[in-house]
Amino acid sequence: MRNFTELLHNQWDAGKFVSVGLDPHQAKLPKGQEPLQFNKAIIDATHHVAGVYKPQSAAYEALGDDGMQILRETISYAHEKAPAVPIILDAKRADIGTTSEEYAKTAYDYLQADAVTLHPYLGEEALKPFLEHKEKGCFILCRTSNPGAAEFQDLLVEYQGKSVPLYMAVAEQVATVWNKAGNCGLVVGATYPEELQQVRQLVGDMPILIPGVGAQGGSLKEAVKGSLNAKGQGMLIHATRSIIFASSGSDFAEAAKKAAEEMHAELTQIRKELL
Amino acid sequence: MRNFTELLHNQWDAGKFVSVGLDPHQAKLPKGQEPLQFNKAIIDATHHVAGVYKPQSAAYEALGDDGMQILRETISYAHEKAPAVPIILDAKRADIGTTSEEYAKTAYDYLQADAVTLHPYLGEEALKPFLEHKEKGCFILCRTSNPGAAEFQDLLVEYQGKSVPLYMAVAEQVATVWNKAGNCGLVVGATYPEELQQVRQLVGDMPILIPGVGAQGGSLKEAVKGSLNAKGQGMLIHATRSIIFASSGSDFAEAAKKAAEEMHAELTQIRKELL
Repeated sequence: MRNFTELLHNQWDAGKFVSVGLDPHQAKLPKGQEPLQFNKAIIDATHHVAGVYKPQSAAYEALGDDGMQILRETISYAHEKAPAVPIILDAKRADIGTTSEEYAKTAYDYLQADAVTLHPYLGEEALKPFLEHKEKGCFILCRTSNPGAAEFQDLLVEYQGKSVPLYMAVAEQVATVWNKAGNCGLVVGATYPEELQQVRQLVGDMPILIPGVGAQGGSLKEAVKGSLNAKGQGMLIHATRSIIFASSGSDFAEAAKKAAEEMHAELTQIRKELL
Repeated sequence: MRNFTELLHNQWDAGKFVSVGLDPHQAKLPKGQEPLQFNKAIIDATHHVAGVYKPQSAAYEALGDDGMQILRETISYAHEKAPAVPIILDAKRADIGTTSEEYAKTAYDYLQADAVTLHPYLGEEALKPFLEHKEKGCFILCRTSNPGAAEFQDLLVEYQGKSVPLYMAVAEQVATVWNKAGNCGLVVGATYPEELQQVRQLVGDMPILIPGVGAQGGSLKEAVKGSLNAKGQGMLIHATRSIIFASSGSDFAEAAKKAAEEMHAELTQIRKELL
């Protein structure tokens, strides 16, 4: 059986830290490409350097009646073609327990994802159907990459006798309470390098998934600097558009290969300089 | 064009406050019933007393390849059979702006829902693709009905120079900042009647969607008491299992009709006593 944490550590040991988005936005697909065919070509072209794949559920739901089937077939193809590469389903789910159970079933049994992203707002109890799957990963939203993230996430809260921003309370709570099965990670945007560094200092070796590099403006170097753990690992730097839509022409797969390889090489170089 | 707020106020003026779940859980369907067929029978049996219908996205995603199509056809049937009854898609979504755009497209263009439920954590900016649809409703999670809701929602935060629980900061922020188009509501669990009352006092006439009555243990009377606005309206009391799974036999539709009518009558009586 696939085990997310084992797969992830194997990828890190192999020096792979790039999270590749698999989001076949209809309007951006190269001419003549169908979403599943496009995804397969991207997987073929990038799996030798991809640390993980992160399909965004919204991109599939937007495809209409066949969206979930295309997502399922995409993940199935990735498992077959690149069994070493874990799949993080970016679904940002969270509901009361009985409903979380259904979401977990969909993510794990039907879609065969290795990990999911989750909202913290309802608390640990509501997310148990996810958290209790030891062999699956749970990435909890901590400091998101969007420009308006501060609105609630930076509010100072009274937490364990301290006054800290809400996102730091979420980080500490996940690290010290939720992570009973050792399968938790956090999502922290590259667009907030200082916050990223604070979260890393707080949570030890815990995996951090880092979106926001590239189109959203985050710096790759700052992101790596702020997120490396004591072992020189611990992070996944995410990119979608700069890799899978590197070219809108018939050379899209070749361009994606080049873009993924370049990001992988840049990351390798940055880690080398920092370690 | 359908307008959620208008439809909702018409329903309230007609004395209808029951939110009926449309969640065709495979394991609970009466023998021989397919999900879509089941939903149609429930809609036929309950639309004369239903204030709104609230399909839970998770229940459809769990159906596999055809789930989204069944959800789309369910909503389409409801619009045709009971055009006066608004549909709140309980999807609890929230992502960065470009992704929220895709979720909003799915909810509004593809599924034709009239309103959605949303997580507050990413802030207003991320949810603009939902909030800016004036004719659609946005129900933001405030105090959820689950037993572990307090973990983050009760943390005291510094907000506008006061020290208040996070859920009260969410309520005030939605009421005073997010509700520019007058299309916002909140989700507050019936399992927390005191918190419900505090939220109502804070947010004026804003719609509150109230799950947690019945299977989750909330009292109908306390929920109505805590949530009525100055006009004696303002709330939707949700029930799924006690209505749609009132019988697991071939009389399921008749049983759902009876259960919905009883809940409607009880709500009418409680409002009468309180007003």
